[in-house]
Amino acid sequence: MNDKLLVLGTMAYDAIESPFGKTGKILGGCATYIGLAASKFKTSCGLVSIIGGDFKKSHLKLLKSSGLDLSGVDCLSGEKTFFWSGKYHNDLNLRTTIDTQLNVLKKFKPKVPDNFKDSSIVLLGNLDPNLQGEVLNQMRNPSLIIMDTMNFWIDSYRDKLDEVISKVDVFSLNDEEARQITRTHSLVEAAQKLHTMGPSYVIIKKGEHGAVLVHADGIAALPAFPLEEEQVVDPTGAGDSFAGGFMGYVAAKGTMDFSTMQTGIAWGTVTASFTLGSFGLDGLVATSREALETRMQEFRQIARI
Amino acid sequence: MNDKLLVLGTMAYDAIESPFGKTGKILGGCATYIGLAASKFKTSCGLVSIIGGDFKKSHLKLLKSSGLDLSGVDCLSGEKTFFWSGKYHNDLNLRTTIDTQLNVLKKFKPKVPDNFKDSSIVLLGNLDPNLQGEVLNQMRNPSLIIMDTMNFWIDSYRDKLDEVISKVDVFSLNDEEARQITRTHSLVEAAQKLHTMGPSYVIIKKGEHGAVLVHADGIAALPAFPLEEEQVVDPTGAGDSFAGGFMGYVAAKGTMDFSTMQTGIAWGTVTASFTLGSFGLDGLVATSREALETRMQEFRQIARI
Repeated sequence: MNDKLLVLGTMAYDAIESPFGKTGKILGGCATYIGLAASKFKTSCGLVSIIGGDFKKSHLKLLKSSGLDLSGVDCLSGEKTFFWSGKYHNDLNLRTTIDTQLNVLKKFKPKVPDNFKDSSIVLLGNLDPNLQGEVLNQMRNPSLIIMDTMNFWIDSYRDKLDEVISKVDVFSLNDEEARQITRTHSLVEAAQKLHTMGPSYVIIKKGEHGAVLVHADGIAALPAFPLEEEQVVDPTGAGDSFAGGFMGYVAAKGTMDFSTMQTGIAWGTVTASFTLGSFGLDGLVATSREALETRMQEFRQIARI
Repeated sequence: MNDKLLVLGTMAYDAIESPFGKTGKILGGCATYIGLAASKFKTSCGLVSIIGGDFKKSHLKLLKSSGLDLSGVDCLSGEKTFFWSGKYHNDLNLRTTIDTQLNVLKKFKPKVPDNFKDSSIVLLGNLDPNLQGEVLNQMRNPSLIIMDTMNFWIDSYRDKLDEVISKVDVFSLNDEEARQITRTHSLVEAAQKLHTMGPSYVIIKKGEHGAVLVHADGIAALPAFPLEEEQVVDPTGAGDSFAGGFMGYVAAKGTMDFSTMQTGIAWGTVTASFTLGSFGLDGLVATSREALETRMQEFRQIARI
């Protein structure tokens, strides 16, 4: 096993409104969140994504200075970067999409750079399952394949989605999505149904209620890191930060047993808690490895039995 | 500190319908659940309650054989025991009350037996706050006062409820109730507001999402014990079993610091998980101390960080 991670996902500009404020166009996209989260751990992480000519040099610089390899990021200079804008309501669990401009995404043909084809870990971020499948086909026998998805793909691309799911080791999704795919209310049972579709590990993210990891060998459950209301400003990217922190820890640890995955969801939880505290990526960018370690120690105390 | 616990609450007959079946009149009531849960720990637990002439001898025998002291249970032989019937929906979080017959409760004048007036711990179960106050007035300087309540008393008896809350050390309530009392969405903030009303410890029960304990010295959070759907048959009394298990552990431990309370909510969680598995008290009655210990070990593994 090597320490290389390959992340497929979007790089985007977002405009976000929440009860705590409103942003202009800020850096976003699931690959960005996942990559920055994973970069907190000692790994070599490459992104496969696409951007337009409007993508700022300062943003490229930020990602590179975090140690991310961008040789798999295609740039269509005559086009615009994927754009999403949305609004969170007083209950931050509810959000409305205001605008989605696919832009460069319509022409996205993901291409894994040669030096990342042998990555031990692949994370297929929330994207068209056809693209997720294309990336998998380019990889040389990865040790661990992790995928994320969202309701849109479950509704409209179910056959292709099921095909990708069948090849995956770790399926990370939220509680609603788990219920939607399996038509099962109980999350433990939903996870068991998802196992029969392929993935041996199922991680169900429950937002403010924590996360559950289900495997034939056992089950792990954690609360969220408890935050006060003023510490939760913008939930965008929290699930991706969770996945990135989880994957970063697993890659750095270099083992793939249940115990590693269990500790991984705690690191994912702690990583995501920093994303929530600011708009966009600001919280994650400002977080040092030391701050992560400190909060992990706090989390161990908080969730001690 | 002695090992005596005094529990105020209802003893009742319940008729329960859930997607998993329907019962006739079965034994229920918050004092019964709390007492039986606490009886799993090494304590001397007395109930203060009221029953009617229809209360079965076999039920009295069951409670006594569990080690509960019933000298504080009044019996009005010409009247009927408090009766409640309700129906749980497919989502077991939703329930509809079908019938409530107060019966003997209308004449309840709680009287603490002399040999329990010096109990170190008092648990004021969900009842009219006037009765909760009367019991407190009869106690001689207890070391720890725990209370539970429900939406009905919050809506209609707010002044008296606030008066009792001001005298309490540990306030145990569910997430909805915490939000209702404080008009605050964030549970961490709701707990902080509840502290200013009196209790130094606030336990917020979130059902399938676990529990949170908040104190000036720290915060503790736990997931629920993960159960499959067929292991959740009837949620009646789960919150009371949690409180009883919590209290039983604290009484047996004999210390009252944050660390004891934190371990206490884990024991409460594990105790409640047995109540969910059968209708009424069957799950709790069938649970040995050994089974509790085994599940606690499992829970430590499941929620390990």
